[in-house]
Amino acid sequence: MIVEEKTISSDRIYNGKVVNLKIDTVEIPNQGYQKREIVEHGGAVGILAITEEGKVVLVKQFRKPIEKVIWEIPAGKLEIGENPKDCAMRELKEETGYTAQNMKLIHKFFTSAGFSNEKIYIYLATGLEAGEDKLDDDEFLDVYEIELEEAYNMIIKNEIEDAKTSIGLLLAKEII
Amino acid sequence: MIVEEKTISSDRIYNGKVVNLKIDTVEIPNQGYQKREIVEHGGAVGILAITEEGKVVLVKQFRKPIEKVIWEIPAGKLEIGENPKDCAMRELKEETGYTAQNMKLIHKFFTSAGFSNEKIYIYLATGLEAGEDKLDDDEFLDVYEIELEEAYNMIIKNEIEDAKTSIGLLLAKEII
Repeated sequence: MIVEEKTISSDRIYNGKVVNLKIDTVEIPNQGYQKREIVEHGGAVGILAITEEGKVVLVKQFRKPIEKVIWEIPAGKLEIGENPKDCAMRELKEETGYTAQNMKLIHKFFTSAGFSNEKIYIYLATGLEAGEDKLDDDEFLDVYEIELEEAYNMIIKNEIEDAKTSIGLLLAKEII
Repeated sequence: MIVEEKTISSDRIYNGKVVNLKIDTVEIPNQGYQKREIVEHGGAVGILAITEEGKVVLVKQFRKPIEKVIWEIPAGKLEIGENPKDCAMRELKEETGYTAQNMKLIHKFFTSAGFSNEKIYIYLATGLEAGEDKLDDDEFLDVYEIELEEAYNMIIKNEIEDAKTSIGLLLAKEII
């Protein structure tokens, strides 16, 4: 049985630059009250950029929360009020230098709906033109162009272990 | 250029039941200091359970952080010290009543490595035997069995919008 939970009260624990944390007290019909820990996030985009040669643009960067360098598609957080498509154009340019003639939304998903409202929009970018990247001062990454077939193999071998990257690549296999 | 970030100090903001929040101050070589907001999570499993008729077991439940009912594969959090495979067996039984003769790890991934260390292990469960479910007092969901082809279409149409569910299903298409 599906039961919706009504918010009785909400305690704001932290308001940050990337996330906020709040604890909601919810009422469950005939079951009383429960606490829900909720991480608020403003949303993000990931860009599956395919070059004229049919290669996919991947980046490698160090991620502090996991203390590890991982493979990812270019991605970034939505700025307040920013349109996801504009964000995708901006982040692709910033991280890889590419501008895209075509930027098409192919999927959106919740990364972890059990504790967070983070939503990621996946765009397919084609008609790429190379240019200068514009990395933020605190952003460090390496850019690679990889054969699509090789990238799929990296998922199967689990060398890719990032949600948005696997979803974007596996979906591309279905639709392009 | 990939740069690893050294932790200089760590402020613990909140220790919860599902997540902890800490703010690390990191040193970036030749760039000074930055703050990193990090949501710690104990990890989780998702189970792609395929019935003898070749259907996939999906659940529908209300998720408070997104205030929405969504489709998901059966899933749950690792208990402290719990082996992911044991967790997959336990969660599949609790949520759907099924026990599985075969429970095979097919993928692991980070849901959102930019701000969280949450890692999800995806298992493929086959050789299912039906039984009684054992839902927690605060857990409410409906169980469905859906043709695999229909489930893939639900991803393409974006009726499925949960990371672990899309990754599990799309990978299954590659490997089973």
